[in-house]
Amino acid sequence: MGEGGEKLAVVLLSGGLDSATTLAVARHEGFTCHALSFDYGQRHRFELAAAGRVAAALGAVRHRVVRIDLSAEGGFGRSALTDAIEVPKDRIAAKPNRQSKTDNREPQIPVTYVPARNTIFLSIALGYAEVVGAFDIFIGVNAVDYSGYPDCRPAFVDAFAALANLATAAAVEGRGRFRIHAPLIHMTKDQIIRTGLALGVDYALTHSCYDPAADGAACGRCDACRLRLRGFAEAGATDPAKYQGISTQPK
Amino acid sequence: MGEGGEKLAVVLLSGGLDSATTLAVARHEGFTCHALSFDYGQRHRFELAAAGRVAAALGAVRHRVVRIDLSAEGGFGRSALTDAIEVPKDRIAAKPNRQSKTDNREPQIPVTYVPARNTIFLSIALGYAEVVGAFDIFIGVNAVDYSGYPDCRPAFVDAFAALANLATAAAVEGRGRFRIHAPLIHMTKDQIIRTGLALGVDYALTHSCYDPAADGAACGRCDACRLRLRGFAEAGATDPAKYQGISTQPK
Repeated sequence: MGEGGEKLAVVLLSGGLDSATTLAVARHEGFTCHALSFDYGQRHRFELAAAGRVAAALGAVRHRVVRIDLSAEGGFGRSALTDAIEVPKDRIAAKPNRQSKTDNREPQIPVTYVPARNTIFLSIALGYAEVVGAFDIFIGVNAVDYSGYPDCRPAFVDAFAALANLATAAAVEGRGRFRIHAPLIHMTKDQIIRTGLALGVDYALTHSCYDPAADGAACGRCDACRLRLRGFAEAGATDPAKYQGISTQPK
Repeated sequence: MGEGGEKLAVVLLSGGLDSATTLAVARHEGFTCHALSFDYGQRHRFELAAAGRVAAALGAVRHRVVRIDLSAEGGFGRSALTDAIEVPKDRIAAKPNRQSKTDNREPQIPVTYVPARNTIFLSIALGYAEVVGAFDIFIGVNAVDYSGYPDCRPAFVDAFAALANLATAAAVEGRGRFRIHAPLIHMTKDQIIRTGLALGVDYALTHSCYDPAADGAACGRCDACRLRLRGFAEAGATDPAKYQGISTQPK
C-alpha cells in the first residue's frame, strides 16, 4: 500500500505484447503502476520506444528505464537479442522450443536466451518496489508458449517470491509480503491477445519483432513475429502492428 | 567445470575486506576465478580501484565491472552509499544494527542499505556464471556482523541457490547444479581477518570506508571503519590501510 491506501505495483514492461497486456491487467485490478524497462544492450531500440508509448497509453504513473549492460561486450551474451548472432527465421512450427532435437545436450534453449535475464530483471524490480513502497510486482512471463526459457515457469516465479520475502528490509521488518504476479503464465497467445483487447490495449503501440527494419517494421518471420501473428489469427483478430510488406491477416 | 576439468567460479568482489578474503578462499579451494564488481553509482570510486588491485593480487583470471545505475537519480536509493545522505559516524557500539530502538517500525536497517542489492548482484553473477560455464558463485556476506542487512543471512543464500537452479538453462538442462558459497557467513570480523592473513591477503589493497578523503584515506569513524578496526584489534593485527591522521593501532 502506498500513501492514502492506494495499491502500488511495479510492472516489468518490455514494449512487447505480453508485458503490455500485463500492465493492462494490473491497471484493471486497481493498481497504481510504476513501469520498469531495461536498456540491457538490445540490438535495437524500438522495444524501449514501444514501452514508453504503452506506459503512457495505459496510465502508468511513472516509466523508468534502468541501464544495465548485458551484451557480450559487457561480459554477457552471446544472445541473438543483444549481439550479432543471426535471428532464426521461418521455422516450421514457429515455436522456438520445437527446434531440431538432433543435439540432445542443448535441445531447447533458443539463441535468443539471455542468461538469467528474468532473475536480473525481477531483482531490480524488487529493489525498485522497495524504494517506492510497493509489494506487488507484475511480470508477463508465459509458460504455455514457453519458448524454452527456464525463467518463464511457475516454479521460477514461486522461487523468486520466496527469495524476495527473505531478501528485503520491507518484508523482513514485517511491513508486507511481496507477491510476484504472472497473470499470463497459463494463457495461450490468443488468450493473452483476447484479454488485452477486452481491456483496451492498443497493440499497434507494441513491438515484438527480434529483427525489425530500420523504420521499426516487424519482419514477420522471426519466432516472436510468427508466434504473435499466429496468436492474432487464433484470436480471430488482425495485428495492427506494422510489418515489412507482408500481409498481417491471419494465415 | 570448465574446459580441461578446471574448477570455475564467479566471485563477487567489492574491493572491501570481506570480498577480498572470499576471493582468497575460493583460490585456496582450487577455483579458477572470474571476479565481478559493480559500478552501481557508489559515491566514490576507491572501492572499484581496490577491487581491481585485489583481483590482480589474488590471481583472478578476469575482473569484470558491470555498470548498473542504482542511485536515486537512476530511480533507486536513497542510500548513504549512493547518494548525498550523511554517513553515520562514531556510533558507540560500532554496529549498525545496534542503533536506537526507539522507532519500533524501522529499527534495524541502516541508511547504507541499498534495496535488494545482493539479490541484484547475485542475479547478475548467475548470468555471468552461465556465460563462462561456472556453477560456483562466491559472495562475502556475513551474518555475524550482520549489519541489519536481510540479504546477508544463510536463509537468503539458500533461497538464491534454489532460485538459480530453476532459473537457468545450464541447471535445467542438467549440465550442473549451482552452488552459492558464502564462506564468511558464520565468521566474526576477526576470524575473517585471521583467515585472510593466513591465506596471504594484503589488506592494504582493500577499501572499506563509507566516507573516504579525496585521496582515498579511510575516515576511521563510519560503521565500516569501526567494524574493520575492531576486527584487526581482536585479531591482534594492525590494519595496513591508510587512515586520515588517526592511529590504526588496536583500540
